[in-house]
Amino acid sequence: MSSLINNLEWRYATKKYDPSKVVAQDKVDLILEAIRLSASSSGLQPYEVLVVTNNAVREQIKPHAWNQSQITDCSHLLVFAAWDNYTAERINQMFDLTNDIRGFKNEGWENYRNQLLNTYPPRDAETNYQHAARQAYIGLGSALIAAAELKVDSTPIEGFDPAKVDEILNLQEKGLRSVLLMPLGYRADDGDWLVNLTKVRRSREQFITEVN
Amino acid sequence: MSSLINNLEWRYATKKYDPSKVVAQDKVDLILEAIRLSASSSGLQPYEVLVVTNNAVREQIKPHAWNQSQITDCSHLLVFAAWDNYTAERINQMFDLTNDIRGFKNEGWENYRNQLLNTYPPRDAETNYQHAARQAYIGLGSALIAAAELKVDSTPIEGFDPAKVDEILNLQEKGLRSVLLMPLGYRADDGDWLVNLTKVRRSREQFITEVN
Repeated sequence: MSSLINNLEWRYATKKYDPSKVVAQDKVDLILEAIRLSASSSGLQPYEVLVVTNNAVREQIKPHAWNQSQITDCSHLLVFAAWDNYTAERINQMFDLTNDIRGFKNEGWENYRNQLLNTYPPRDAETNYQHAARQAYIGLGSALIAAAELKVDSTPIEGFDPAKVDEILNLQEKGLRSVLLMPLGYRADDGDWLVNLTKVRRSREQFITEVN
Repeated sequence: MSSLINNLEWRYATKKYDPSKVVAQDKVDLILEAIRLSASSSGLQPYEVLVVTNNAVREQIKPHAWNQSQITDCSHLLVFAAWDNYTAERINQMFDLTNDIRGFKNEGWENYRNQLLNTYPPRDAETNYQHAARQAYIGLGSALIAAAELKVDSTPIEGFDPAKVDEILNLQEKGLRSVLLMPLGYRADDGDWLVNLTKVRRSREQFITEVN
């Protein structure tokens, strides 16, 4: 069986962390790198990741995340925060960076830049934010796999009040909106109701349809 | 360096496939299994995947996807299709399956079922669909990594007319809406403008913020 399938089988949404166990920096770095390398629509990477280790900040976030103990007991709390809008500045920044790195300008690429500039900024901010937020989920997919590869436990969390988290982390002034939380750490020896339960997924027959 | 980082570095959005090269079924199966095992909100897996090999169907889809050659030149075309709504039936199906597989009922779990039943079905269908669609992006993240692990080329595609694809694949009658296309196959020897270009990502400093 592939290592990826093993890693996906191994991981689960950890419910209780051992607060005394810290994830080594090189492992955190690999998880962040997996997110950074993830695909995104037109390569815009329309989100950022905050790595919260500050305890006071995590205590502030916790009541706005259903008081889930993982927020404060984990080693590192990742916050995926999507662009609140697509602006000409943000789009140009990525296209300019691409030209800088590749060392040339290309007509097709510049036409594509203009197509995005003519499409995204005129749209309403909410539509653009929703599109940006979806891209963060690709990064989450990579992060869950990266953590599992390193045998680091993690928990993908949507259950929180984004407006409150935005306020605590001053995301609005950065033009960001929080989308996902992802505690990283090591499971506690006791008290995790989910750890020993079988992973449940619909059968292949109920999930996949072949159109031959 | 971890194999995952290597795989993420290796992959790119393939622009031209060799139509004579077919991805072996065991590799397709592993990619589908990686999607099936992916995390999703509350474990609902609110999407399905269609595997389109039928040439006539792919020819029908192509004009509604900017005539991108990958649609017809690839070996297998994956279509991620999200639930068009969260219904009580769909929620109950997953909670019942969980109880069946784990072999017991649990009060906390039943309370959680009721919380979802009281929250999701009363919301408007569009809000529920948008939430379901986000989960498909986690699956896409897994699929991109799975394909890269197997040295299978792939292309994540948002650029298509979902209403047309829904019509061609009769998704409406299944309560699904197409979200993402993902051709799988092997790159052509010539004619792929992207294959030799450097991957571009914002620097870690522009992507990650530490809150210590």
